[in-house]
Amino acid sequence: MASVITFGEIMLRLSPPSNLRFVQTDSFDARFGGGEANVSFALSNFGVDTSFVTKLPKNDIGQACINELRRYGVDVSNIVLGGDRIGIYFLEKGASQRGSKVIYDRANSSISQCSKEDFDWDKIFDGAKWFHLTGITPALGKNVAEVCIEACKKAKEKNLTISFDLNFRKKLWTSKEANETMSKLMPYVDICVANEEDAEKVFGIKAKDTNIIEGKLSHEGYKDVAKEIVDRFKVKKVGITLRGSISASENLWSCMLYNGSEYYFSKEYLIKIVDRVGGGDSFAAGLIYSFLNGKDDREALEFATASSCLKHSIEGDFNVVTVDEVMTVYNGDASGRIQR
Amino acid sequence: MASVITFGEIMLRLSPPSNLRFVQTDSFDARFGGGEANVSFALSNFGVDTSFVTKLPKNDIGQACINELRRYGVDVSNIVLGGDRIGIYFLEKGASQRGSKVIYDRANSSISQCSKEDFDWDKIFDGAKWFHLTGITPALGKNVAEVCIEACKKAKEKNLTISFDLNFRKKLWTSKEANETMSKLMPYVDICVANEEDAEKVFGIKAKDTNIIEGKLSHEGYKDVAKEIVDRFKVKKVGITLRGSISASENLWSCMLYNGSEYYFSKEYLIKIVDRVGGGDSFAAGLIYSFLNGKDDREALEFATASSCLKHSIEGDFNVVTVDEVMTVYNGDASGRIQR
Amino acid sequence: MASVITFGEIMLRLSPPSNLRFVQTDSFDARFGGGEANVSFALSNFGVDTSFVTKLPKNDIGQACINELRRYGVDVSNIVLGGDRIGIYFLEKGASQRGSKVIYDRANSSISQCSKEDFDWDKIFDGAKWFHLTGITPALGKNVAEVCIEACKKAKEKNLTISFDLNFRKKLWTSKEANETMSKLMPYVDICVANEEDAEKVFGIKAKDTNIIEGKLSHEGYKDVAKEIVDRFKVKKVGITLRGSISASENLWSCMLYNGSEYYFSKEYLIKIVDRVGGGDSFAAGLIYSFLNGKDDREALEFATASSCLKHSIEGDFNVVTVDEVMTVYNGDASGRIQR
Amino acid sequence: MASVITFGEIMLRLSPPSNLRFVQTDSFDARFGGGEANVSFALSNFGVDTSFVTKLPKNDIGQACINELRRYGVDVSNIVLGGDRIGIYFLEKGASQRGSKVIYDRANSSISQCSKEDFDWDKIFDGAKWFHLTGITPALGKNVAEVCIEACKKAKEKNLTISFDLNFRKKLWTSKEANETMSKLMPYVDICVANEEDAEKVFGIKAKDTNIIEGKLSHEGYKDVAKEIVDRFKVKKVGITLRGSISASENLWSCMLYNGSEYYFSKEYLIKIVDRVGGGDSFAAGLIYSFLNGKDDREALEFATASSCLKHSIEGDFNVVTVDEVMTVYNGDASGRIQR
Amino acid sequence: MASVITFGEIMLRLSPPSNLRFVQTDSFDARFGGGEANVSFALSNFGVDTSFVTKLPKNDIGQACINELRRYGVDVSNIVLGGDRIGIYFLEKGASQRGSKVIYDRANSSISQCSKEDFDWDKIFDGAKWFHLTGITPALGKNVAEVCIEACKKAKEKNLTISFDLNFRKKLWTSKEANETMSKLMPYVDICVANEEDAEKVFGIKAKDTNIIEGKLSHEGYKDVAKEIVDRFKVKKVGITLRGSISASENLWSCMLYNGSEYYFSKEYLIKIVDRVGGGDSFAAGLIYSFLNGKDDREALEFATASSCLKHSIEGDFNVVTVDEVMTVYNGDASGRIQR
Amino acid sequence: MASVITFGEIMLRLSPPSNLRFVQTDSFDARFGGGEANVSFALSNFGVDTSFVTKLPKNDIGQACINELRRYGVDVSNIVLGGDRIGIYFLEKGASQRGSKVIYDRANSSISQCSKEDFDWDKIFDGAKWFHLTGITPALGKNVAEVCIEACKKAKEKNLTISFDLNFRKKLWTSKEANETMSKLMPYVDICVANEEDAEKVFGIKAKDTNIIEGKLSHEGYKDVAKEIVDRFKVKKVGITLRGSISASENLWSCMLYNGSEYYFSKEYLIKIVDRVGGGDSFAAGLIYSFLNGKDDREALEFATASSCLKHSIEGDFNVVTVDEVMTVYNGDASGRIQR
Repeated sequence: MASVITFGEIMLRLSPPSNLRFVQTDSFDARFGGGEANVSFALSNFGVDTSFVTKLPKNDIGQACINELRRYGVDVSNIVLGGDRIGIYFLEKGASQRGSKVIYDRANSSISQCSKEDFDWDKIFDGAKWFHLTGITPALGKNVAEVCIEACKKAKEKNLTISFDLNFRKKLWTSKEANETMSKLMPYVDICVANEEDAEKVFGIKAKDTNIIEGKLSHEGYKDVAKEIVDRFKVKKVGITLRGSISASENLWSCMLYNGSEYYFSKEYLIKIVDRVGGGDSFAAGLIYSFLNGKDDREALEFATASSCLKHSIEGDFNVVTVDEVMTVYNGDASGRIQR
Repeated sequence: MASVITFGEIMLRLSPPSNLRFVQTDSFDARFGGGEANVSFALSNFGVDTSFVTKLPKNDIGQACINELRRYGVDVSNIVLGGDRIGIYFLEKGASQRGSKVIYDRANSSISQCSKEDFDWDKIFDGAKWFHLTGITPALGKNVAEVCIEACKKAKEKNLTISFDLNFRKKLWTSKEANETMSKLMPYVDICVANEEDAEKVFGIKAKDTNIIEGKLSHEGYKDVAKEIVDRFKVKKVGITLRGSISASENLWSCMLYNGSEYYFSKEYLIKIVDRVGGGDSFAAGLIYSFLNGKDDREALEFATASSCLKHSIEGDFNVVTVDEVMTVYNGDASGRIQR
Repeated sequence: MASVITFGEIMLRLSPPSNLRFVQTDSFDARFGGGEANVSFALSNFGVDTSFVTKLPKNDIGQACINELRRYGVDVSNIVLGGDRIGIYFLEKGASQRGSKVIYDRANSSISQCSKEDFDWDKIFDGAKWFHLTGITPALGKNVAEVCIEACKKAKEKNLTISFDLNFRKKLWTSKEANETMSKLMPYVDICVANEEDAEKVFGIKAKDTNIIEGKLSHEGYKDVAKEIVDRFKVKKVGITLRGSISASENLWSCMLYNGSEYYFSKEYLIKIVDRVGGGDSFAAGLIYSFLNGKDDREALEFATASSCLKHSIEGDFNVVTVDEVMTVYNGDASGRIQR
Repeated sequence: MASVITFGEIMLRLSPPSNLRFVQTDSFDARFGGGEANVSFALSNFGVDTSFVTKLPKNDIGQACINELRRYGVDVSNIVLGGDRIGIYFLEKGASQRGSKVIYDRANSSISQCSKEDFDWDKIFDGAKWFHLTGITPALGKNVAEVCIEACKKAKEKNLTISFDLNFRKKLWTSKEANETMSKLMPYVDICVANEEDAEKVFGIKAKDTNIIEGKLSHEGYKDVAKEIVDRFKVKKVGITLRGSISASENLWSCMLYNGSEYYFSKEYLIKIVDRVGGGDSFAAGLIYSFLNGKDDREALEFATASSCLKHSIEGDFNVVTVDEVMTVYNGDASGRIQR
Repeated sequence: MASVITFGEIMLRLSPPSNLRFVQTDSFDARFGGGEANVSFALSNFGVDTSFVTKLPKNDIGQACINELRRYGVDVSNIVLGGDRIGIYFLEKGASQRGSKVIYDRANSSISQCSKEDFDWDKIFDGAKWFHLTGITPALGKNVAEVCIEACKKAKEKNLTISFDLNFRKKLWTSKEANETMSKLMPYVDICVANEEDAEKVFGIKAKDTNIIEGKLSHEGYKDVAKEIVDRFKVKKVGITLRGSISASENLWSCMLYNGSEYYFSKEYLIKIVDRVGGGDSFAAGLIYSFLNGKDDREALEFATASSCLKHSIEGDFNVVTVDEVMTVYNGDASGRIQR
Repeated sequence: MASVITFGEIMLRLSPPSNLRFVQTDSFDARFGGGEANVSFALSNFGVDTSFVTKLPKNDIGQACINELRRYGVDVSNIVLGGDRIGIYFLEKGASQRGSKVIYDRANSSISQCSKEDFDWDKIFDGAKWFHLTGITPALGKNVAEVCIEACKKAKEKNLTISFDLNFRKKLWTSKEANETMSKLMPYVDICVANEEDAEKVFGIKAKDTNIIEGKLSHEGYKDVAKEIVDRFKVKKVGITLRGSISASENLWSCMLYNGSEYYFSKEYLIKIVDRVGGGDSFAAGLIYSFLNGKDDREALEFATASSCLKHSIEGDFNVVTVDEVMTVYNGDASGRIQR
């Protein structure tokens, strides 16, 4: 019986090795990843029982994906087999002034073809405490959005805490469509997570004095953003990741949390990037872990920030770090010294 | 101006390195391949000007595919950009008693979404002598089948020789559907190519005394098959590849040619397999090269057989061999001695 | 609740890539394997619930091992953490006339340091039907041998079927020591598995007219071996794998089964070897699967033989094949044809 | 018909993978590169028709080189086959305080053995607008220098713009020899390109207040250098790349352009280096593209600088970037943000 | 006849490729390393005749280790074969805020099982000038500590200079045990080397105003440390490496030398780390080389610092740099410019 | 002091990984090899002190070559540094009917530029017993041929046994040139080694009833060849390797020895080829080892044949096998069984 349930798409991720560009490579590193799966994955590493709910094709690639989740301890018993294919995303890693590049090939994935009949939420949520999903899932199609709403309803009935990461994807829908669908989901949400761009893209809530392209983010501006989300949607807490993009190789990383009364800003880390995908998911997982374990808001924010900072040093979407490793950074040792 | 035009789908081919199975790998070797592209590729290596016609998505993966064709000298100026995605096929190489395994993920590829407007056959065929396509292309969709028929009509008008490889794919259509569509295409065909299974699967023409699973193929049986194809469809020549499957690591390989009066059977080769995909395409390319260069039927058959024998020793769909290399085997030196 | 319990050592397996020798390599492929783990692994692929019992060190290498088992669906909840290290074996793959070479570095592994207190067999066997172990486990030390005896006793009490693979390892103990300890364990055994050498090495039961070095094995000789094992130890069935070593690249592979009245000899396969480690374990797993699923002796033998034949085509100790894949070979298609 | 013709040597480039030193490696990454080929390559990526003129040996390594050029769209129809060998250069990538290291093995390359009879410049320049070469080509031998002069003469006759990159190579000739030969070529040159060291090494024109070893470059000093080149050789424009070497892993990169009246200095980029070879060639290609497309001097300089800045993030000699990608940086987004 | 003798353990070092974590990898890069071996290795690269004394198992892994030493010119004629195994250490490279991680599996290594009979120090030291060892060796066991003492005695008798690197390893012994044993060894030592932590861990001598976790090291504090070591143990010189840990990817690196009267502090380098293991050993080797070649204290310090700075840019434990390469940095060119 | 001296060229060998063709690869496996170096290498593995004499360029590639020799115990103290470059050969491994392909790029190598002054044969041969060289060395140039003659003279004076492998290379000289030069060398030769083609190519001595292309070799024919060599040149023994080329993947391998009175034919091995380069050199080394160790002619032949049979299972030119491993095959166990 899992404590935390996540629901969404997991994709096959294909990336050229080292620094090669798409047109240079003759092989791809093959991994799996997706917003909600990444959260389950990180939580499992933290020792939390977690189940990832999705639909995957009944073939060896689907099986390889299930195996990968299982390998890291994520419960896969709620995964439905069927549909045509696993979604794919191609990732080219950037370097210096050249940004990373993603090509999505996710249309007609099994999960995008799912229907209400595929999932028995009553059973899935049995004994669970938390439900997490992201703005990617309802964007996969009207059918999937409906499944999301149904799941949220059921989760609320069963008193689960619901966290939601806005995660806007412009290739999947327009801001208008996102706003429309998300507005139906937000009433169920307890904790809203976003990055430095999402709130504007989804709800038109823009941070003042901020220029994302130049990597300059204003604390004051994000206070307003957080406040407006709380005011508009009555969520309990808003967590926002603040990425200062210096280059594809170096980022500044800090996060904020607003609980309706206090604004907390975390320590800021200067990160040498190994793999930046899944940073936001690690932050969400850090918050969920913290709140499930009774940490207060400041502690939760710092834990989640340290955790997501570490994600950037790890290959793949998945945040392969333990609680102990996060705590080392949380406790102030971010010097990367060797541990013999 | 290309002598030989081919039309069809080219896919991204993803295969685990060495002998790994799908569920064991964390990387894929990335190549490109597809029946007609393989023929163009082989011809280009033989020094024949050839143009491959298809539709590819306007993204870096599509570009990488174009680059790969260009790299080996195939003309890409008739490739149309557009549509959603490049088709993908996953290939797990077999060994010993374990057969190779293919998972197709080709639905909704750009070429399957093409329409008549995409191709100006009049211009494409300008100055060309030969048009080749396979049974895979019309199987991609009714729209594509119509484009095939239109192309064949135009090719006939312009006096091109048309070769057609039956290439039945049971994941794309049923035997009934294949029969129906192919029957419309066969009237245009001059040279029909097939493997040891196709004629039965597409037209219900079965070779007597043959057990493909046990790798036992009867010469007499295939004479009848070839004769019936000629009789039924009035094609000028029929070429059939005869694969004797000993194991995934070893095959017997020979071919036959029937020209309406004489039956020719080639030398038989015992092959240690490096990569068996594209064997039939190499045979077709060998025939086309031979007939374009005035070889007689026996010579053409032996050249095409030697060429396709060599294909099995080469990684990928593409037959990276020169005319000189084929001639070494054709002339009797199949001993694989070192060339210093 | 697992149907089949296995108990033993799982090691980190380090092998130079491709055909490199130990003194040539600057990297090792890293996998995990061990007699009983291999059996659990194969069974899990066949859809059988199975739990592997062992002791592993509490560090990241131990965790990686647990993850690998988990990845393929083996239950790891009975694995005890503690002790000093994971055993290691270095494997250099042979080719042609050069045999494969194993260097063991398994002394002082966590499992070799285990004690009775580490395992609660009552709980482990709860709901289980079958217990499998091999001659390697009691050879790890007197303490481990005692744990084996205790486990067997408990398994018998709870009416589990017990299978035992003799698996003699001359680096771990002498024939005399093996004979002594094994003689205490055999009374609990229902099904005994051995290879062409074990019976002689452990019990001094030699097959007549057999020269293992030259790869010549006599059916009649092995009938006698099987009969003597049954007569001496009152086991119900004896399964023996018969490897005809042509070279490091090619083996003949067949198996026999004796049930106290009938002798069955399986089909013989000529194998091109990818990785021969774990062949015997796959055979044992094939028998267990078959008997759990009500197959008769001949069917069980052929299933187990086909399954272990396929193992030789797969990298690593683990037999990554499904029941369907085994059944293809079982049903006579060992031609390794491509499956599209 | 190509717009831009380049002429020079292309070499096989062999570099140890990742950070390995020459004496540590047992494999080499194999690429191709050379000053003028790099320019053609970059231009082809920008959509400019371009033909690279050289001489290559008639063997499979020569063919692989042709294929690589063809792959990225460079016209190879003016490449002559013959001569003994392809030149080779070994490249060890530096890191931190350890500089990159090049070992040339280019003597007796096919191109160094070329003669006037090998190239029909009248035909090669037919329809072309621009001719580019570098100081490496005439340094290959007196015969090659003569071919260069002949080509320049013919290019002038046919009204092509001629750009010339000084590119001094001390392993090929002395400053004295360079000065002598270059002085014969400069009268044909319209646009001269150089790096922070070339002018001094070739013409003895030294920048004041500059210490290249310490990575300190003076703007004023380079104004004087540019002015003296214009004054002495009557070229129309001089472009100079200014590399501030912080370490082998980090460089400052900016460029200047002088048109005889105005001095322009570009934005300066702090670069995390993936591969620094070909930076200057990318700058030259950026200028050529800009001037062919009617950009003004300032725009041309910034485009060329942004383009060559991006080159440093790309493996190999070749600058695999599109105009759109350069324009992103040109327009101020050098933050390397992910593009989904 | 070697000038410099070193004695200690050399281990097989297994590290996941690139940035992978232990639980992510399915292969290990295999190298060899160990404090004293690293010193011999570096000296051999500097052209110094050096012999590494150890005990290794008589198997192919031991042989591979001998070959690796031999490859780089280290004399192996004093290596004794025997014992059970080679020690292993697993190294996971850190990045950014995530520190590198070492898992030792060195218990029961052949060298830890050595006895006085294994080594004939009289013969080993014949003609030698210098003996170097580290605090790791006596920590391997009481037997090994005794061998160390015996060797030191003999070395003193024969007038060798003895250098000793404190190199505290908390997994091998406690500070108390270290203090006890080291105190017996220090009377023989001429030159003591330590890092920023060792003196505190071994002798309880702590640097004031220093916070190693935050990477802030006080020059004044280390003067006191050096002075106390000299005062307490009457060594002639103390060299200390001062690592300022910014992150796992970036370190500040400088060193100090105290000769009983003067304190010298070297230039400080900002290092982008490729591989930080062996930094201290490179420093020790730099000092030994310098003093053997008559450099004065300041020169020796700067040479040793430049040398160990370069080590961080090189894969593996071994410092693959030549004297010329060190001198480039020593002479002020730390800009990592390309050397053509 | 080495027992066996060899003299010749060692080249950098670059081969595409696995089965890739030259035009498909983007990396090369880098090894070193050459006829005489291969002999020294094999002997060193057999525990014989051996020194390889050559000239190599003074750069990091030359150093890497020296290191590789040193790694396997070959004495490198007689290697002279100087000259322009190391020779290179590109090797594409064949498979099945496709033969392996070698492209030489060895002109102007340092050794081909050597002169008599480079080598002090008096000193080199001091204490040695055997001198080995091959027909490749004198083919490198008249200067090198003269050095060979001088060395042979000196070797004779000092009573060394001289073995000579004909090793004809048609890219280096014509049969006529070979005959001329070799005829001057043969008077010094004690033991002549050849393969199935050399005698014909060099001396016009053809084996009757033999068709090398079809892999059919006649024992009687080679008796005549051996006899004629002995008769014509008064050598003491002639060893001939007899390769029956079935395909690039499979060869038959046996050898013969004629001592002027008896003809011995070895056992014949069916080999699955990993790497066939260096087979003849391993045979020569096997003979040298045998005769140095007092084996009789039949023993020597079988040892040398077993040794060279094993070479085919090993990557690279070098025969990485021990005497024990050869003896296993010699003693009849060529079954490639696993050695635990």
